Amino acid sequence: MIGLRKPEYELPSRSQRVALFSPEDPLILSSGERLEKVEVAYQTYGRLNERGDNAILICHALTGSAHVSDCGFPEPSPLGEGWWNQLVDEGRPVDPRHDFVICSNFLGSCYGTTGPVSVNPRSGTNYGPDFPEIDVRDMVRVQRRLLEHLGVARIRCALGGSLGGMQVLEWCAMYPEMVRSAVVIATSAAHSAWAIGFNESARQAILGDPAWQGGRYREQPAQGLALARTIAMISYRSQVSYQERFGRGEMASGDPRQVPDPAGAPSAWQIENYLRYQGQKLVKRFDANTYLTITRAMDRHDLGRDRGGVEAALAAFPMPVLCVGISSDVLYPPHEQRQIARHIPHAQYAEIQSEHGHDAFLIEFEQLNELVEAFLAGPDRDLPRPK
Amino acid sequence: MIGLRKPEYELPSRSQRVALFSPEDPLILSSGERLEKVEVAYQTYGRLNERGDNAILICHALTGSAHVSDCGFPEPSPLGEGWWNQLVDEGRPVDPRHDFVICSNFLGSCYGTTGPVSVNPRSGTNYGPDFPEIDVRDMVRVQRRLLEHLGVARIRCALGGSLGGMQVLEWCAMYPEMVRSAVVIATSAAHSAWAIGFNESARQAILGDPAWQGGRYREQPAQGLALARTIAMISYRSQVSYQERFGRGEMASGDPRQVPDPAGAPSAWQIENYLRYQGQKLVKRFDANTYLTITRAMDRHDLGRDRGGVEAALAAFPMPVLCVGISSDVLYPPHEQRQIARHIPHAQYAEIQSEHGHDAFLIEFEQLNELVEAFLAGPDRDLPRPK
Repeated sequence: MIGLRKPEYELPSRSQRVALFSPEDPLILSSGERLEKVEVAYQTYGRLNERGDNAILICHALTGSAHVSDCGFPEPSPLGEGWWNQLVDEGRPVDPRHDFVICSNFLGSCYGTTGPVSVNPRSGTNYGPDFPEIDVRDMVRVQRRLLEHLGVARIRCALGGSLGGMQVLEWCAMYPEMVRSAVVIATSAAHSAWAIGFNESARQAILGDPAWQGGRYREQPAQGLALARTIAMISYRSQVSYQERFGRGEMASGDPRQVPDPAGAPSAWQIENYLRYQGQKLVKRFDANTYLTITRAMDRHDLGRDRGGVEAALAAFPMPVLCVGISSDVLYPPHEQRQIARHIPHAQYAEIQSEHGHDAFLIEFEQLNELVEAFLAGPDRDLPRPK
Repeated sequence: MIGLRKPEYELPSRSQRVALFSPEDPLILSSGERLEKVEVAYQTYGRLNERGDNAILICHALTGSAHVSDCGFPEPSPLGEGWWNQLVDEGRPVDPRHDFVICSNFLGSCYGTTGPVSVNPRSGTNYGPDFPEIDVRDMVRVQRRLLEHLGVARIRCALGGSLGGMQVLEWCAMYPEMVRSAVVIATSAAHSAWAIGFNESARQAILGDPAWQGGRYREQPAQGLALARTIAMISYRSQVSYQERFGRGEMASGDPRQVPDPAGAPSAWQIENYLRYQGQKLVKRFDANTYLTITRAMDRHDLGRDRGGVEAALAAFPMPVLCVGISSDVLYPPHEQRQIARHIPHAQYAEIQSEHGHDAFLIEFEQLNELVEAFLAGPDRDLPRPK
């Protein structure tokens, strides 16, 4: 078996795992291919009520995991801090004392759910480059099955940013009867040419690394994956944000934080070193085939496909939706969020004022929490929420 | 001698070439290193008047050349169309019937001026990775010597966009007595962390290509240079511009325009294919070591260095300067242009309204020409300009 060496992207100890689907009842992907077994890693917080309708579904982004919050964990997760700790915790807008919070690692990822690093039951080795083509709808199909398994009848609110928002939009379109309300942040109704362009550059970086070996690597194509991350990191922030943080700050060549370039030379600028460091950091916690699989799924994302176009798909949403743009987001700019809101019958649009670009949905909690709290109190007044 | 194969970035037939500096009078670079001989490829349009003060200096951008206009050329240049044809021609704002127009390939480039593809007289082989570190000031020092050689006493106006604008700003700071007015478009007074980040990604792509061979390649590191261009192409346009042009248009796998990815797979999306095509196109006309040399020079660009900071440097400009921003420029955003204008005593600020992003300075000629024409008529009323 071709094993990946020391994967550091292991299942967090407190995650649960369930095997869904079967040879008799396979997951049928949008491509028509089938997966006979899908393992899903997920975390839940709080308890499902008797009616099964106090569920809050959180969808994560490209390199995220099910570990949305540290709430209730006695010790830090090996995956690091919960990525939406400040939104999901006791006393926060999503509160496990009242809500049954679910976050699952999506199909195709490498944090415990079936994906390219999983063993292909047919070959006995990792899927690697043979993992089937998936799209965002496939991710949602798996989540739907998980919620069934958990006994969830209705989702009080589904929330997500970036690729998480794409999943939420698909939830609203595929299972509208289950979703009572939704919050989508800094996302896309149909992946834009610009966003595809960033992903394409990232993929070229991975595919161009000789260590990629047609996807059948044992050691990561580290250089390519690091460059993919470097490119993506540019798109996640903004000109102003990097300028304020790094400006023209230089790096001393003997600085112990130095990360060399592929030719072994030290960084001249702090921003260079930061980007190289971010690249190396991702290599330790993520998988290159997974990066290819997920970015291709994002590029296929088109809410309007087989639904008469994006506008018709959004117009059919029966539930209230809060659409949140970020003023400085260059990747999924505010005009995309306004366009989403414009076509949903019961939509609110709000804009986070931030210089941090796309990543502001993981940074600007004061603004985000206020918006989510007000929204959750609004369309769900029949569910009283203690302050 | 290590020769580069079939360089297609040859000197255009109509370019002139001159050898400047000498062992007794070398070019002393900002780094302290010396170049004993610098060949410069340049083109001129029109005639210098007796006072030597009707010169218009045009500075080109990263992958540009001296071939700014086809004006007066009986046949197309091997470098393709003049890159500012619509600004520089008879009846255009810069008019060779009245102006003596000069555009030279800058130091470090590969279109006829000394740079990494030139022969190092000490070794008898191409400089390649041994070409010294240069900065924008070094480019301007060479241009200053060229103008001396041509008998130019004063520059009526110096114009440039992007890296061209950086050269113009350095001209204003280094030789203020020679520059009567200036137009800078979509540029930077000091290269931002964000812009360095894009360049750093591009360099990683080149340095990570095994064909780079420490810079001593005979065949181009084609994949790395193509990816460098792909990354840059994203920064040169805008989300809206790519969306309007390509949207989610797909590519048929058998389309004869298909450009495969590094793993040999066809493009799924038109935007992917466009970016791959642009990458391949650059590989045919540009050199990887040159790309490294120039992007590093851009990253070193800081008008404020040894001048008490950017604001003090700009405040010392005696000449009128037109600063032009582009509304959708993500690489050198309008706020950078406004900041430049704010600190120059005699500055005008104007903004080109465009969805084309940074490249709008090569596209939006109706707006640009109107601005340049009005500006040239203004600060130079003593030079009557026939309409």
